[in-house]
Amino acid sequence: MTSFTPGVENYRERTEQSFARQGALRLLGADLGRVAPGYCEIVLPYRADLTQQHGYFHAGITTTIADTAGGYAGYTLFPPDSEVVAVEFKVNLLSPAVGDRLIACAQVLRAGRNLTTTEVEVFAESADGTRKRCAKMLQTLARVAAPEGG
Amino acid sequence: MTSFTPGVENYRERTEQSFARQGALRLLGADLGRVAPGYCEIVLPYRADLTQQHGYFHAGITTTIADTAGGYAGYTLFPPDSEVVAVEFKVNLLSPAVGDRLIACAQVLRAGRNLTTTEVEVFAESADGTRKRCAKMLQTLARVAAPEGG
Amino acid sequence: MTSFTPGVENYRERTEQSFARQGALRLLGADLGRVAPGYCEIVLPYRADLTQQHGYFHAGITTTIADTAGGYAGYTLFPPDSEVVAVEFKVNLLSPAVGDRLIACAQVLRAGRNLTTTEVEVFAESADGTRKRCAKMLQTLARVAAPEGG
Amino acid sequence: MTSFTPGVENYRERTEQSFARQGALRLLGADLGRVAPGYCEIVLPYRADLTQQHGYFHAGITTTIADTAGGYAGYTLFPPDSEVVAVEFKVNLLSPAVGDRLIACAQVLRAGRNLTTTEVEVFAESADGTRKRCAKMLQTLARVAAPEGG
Repeated sequence: MTSFTPGVENYRERTEQSFARQGALRLLGADLGRVAPGYCEIVLPYRADLTQQHGYFHAGITTTIADTAGGYAGYTLFPPDSEVVAVEFKVNLLSPAVGDRLIACAQVLRAGRNLTTTEVEVFAESADGTRKRCAKMLQTLARVAAPEGG
Repeated sequence: MTSFTPGVENYRERTEQSFARQGALRLLGADLGRVAPGYCEIVLPYRADLTQQHGYFHAGITTTIADTAGGYAGYTLFPPDSEVVAVEFKVNLLSPAVGDRLIACAQVLRAGRNLTTTEVEVFAESADGTRKRCAKMLQTLARVAAPEGG
Repeated sequence: MTSFTPGVENYRERTEQSFARQGALRLLGADLGRVAPGYCEIVLPYRADLTQQHGYFHAGITTTIADTAGGYAGYTLFPPDSEVVAVEFKVNLLSPAVGDRLIACAQVLRAGRNLTTTEVEVFAESADGTRKRCAKMLQTLARVAAPEGG
Repeated sequence: MTSFTPGVENYRERTEQSFARQGALRLLGADLGRVAPGYCEIVLPYRADLTQQHGYFHAGITTTIADTAGGYAGYTLFPPDSEVVAVEFKVNLLSPAVGDRLIACAQVLRAGRNLTTTEVEVFAESADGTRKRCAKMLQTLARVAAPEGG
């Protein structure tokens, strides 16, 4: 595993502040988990209103937390006064997303000056702690200059 | 444009019934738009609780309606007693998803016996009707046997 | 279809010069086809040594001309002293690539200052001129400063 | 790492026989490396006629060996009288593919009855043995019935 240098000292705090501004994640009930340089987890407890027609987590919801985890994994490495935007991602849905909660675990694969690549695994976890990998994402991020005071 | 034969006569009704069972789409406030053989639209009005940290529609939310539109575009061609599941998809985020509503327009590219490929474009529409393409998806779907009475 | 402004006047000539330096395309026997602002075609005649185990064009070979066509479609829009590199791409293999030649037709979806998105369709063409779409690609390109004299 | 059960006893021999029928890989000069249940390596020594305009391995060539390695990683798990075809793949090009040889290392992520997902990493290796990861692929494979005697 490559070791990464954080882009700012208070990367955890910066991530929390950005996370708190995301209306969509509040709506879903997602929580920020572990954050480390080049790494981020997002946790999403099960709710019936997050499902598709078979009662599993909707693939779009799974993708929402994977995209968010990937974005923040990259963001931990960005210098001050920068923002992160996703350029593109690809998701393989490996097994039904059924469980008591989802955990998206994102890791930076390559950190560049303008472009950063991450990979994200999403696990469905049962109350007894057993985990099954249900999705895998490859994602490309861009670093953009932050708006003043952003 | 290829012309497609619907898999059941009442494909619109079957789509509506499946759509109504999707808790996640109700939570987001998405509506089913035009449905035709090999084609489906999903519409999503703007709400502040669908956004990311900059106030645009969250890329995961954009993906949720794109994935759903693509799934139902394929489903219109499926025979009775079958269900649709997404195998994988890839999304390019072309411009900020900012507008009064999003419209995901999905078209079947190739319909196979087991696997179907769709492409989906998502447009951000302003109150005055101007549209800007904000995302493009390529998606692979699988047809699975429906559970009894499903 | 959006209308694009070429990045240099002699974009065709610049494309030909770059194409001529690509050893891999010479090895495969690929030719540059139509080039227009935001558009490029690459043609590949059938040879037995371009195939996979069933005698069709190898998916990697199909991808090679798709990637090249996409790269040059974007490159037509780039200013002087810039080069094009592919950041990532995704290919759906829609039908067996069997025919007398392949034609990759690439179109810019979105042209940005640093990043450009293309979509590419590859058709397998028979001697009688019938075409079947065998692959579809979504591709992200980056513009980089050209090395001196490059 | 999950442990996989091979689909046939002589999976190595079956892979070699299929590999030997691939004209494109012979043209490129690729070799089959390590093969294990759910795993396959393809090695490609550098040649000037495998390059793009900057003298690196062409992204399409990198993709060709990644796609092949992924396909055979899945194939090791397939029962007798079956063939493997790639449905789709996505590649992130992480760094310039420059070195004395490329090595594509493919691992099955999920093995299903009809569909198998792999991930593939491609490394550029120098004569002194140092390796740099230059590409990452996610790939979907389908199992199809083999033609008689195939």
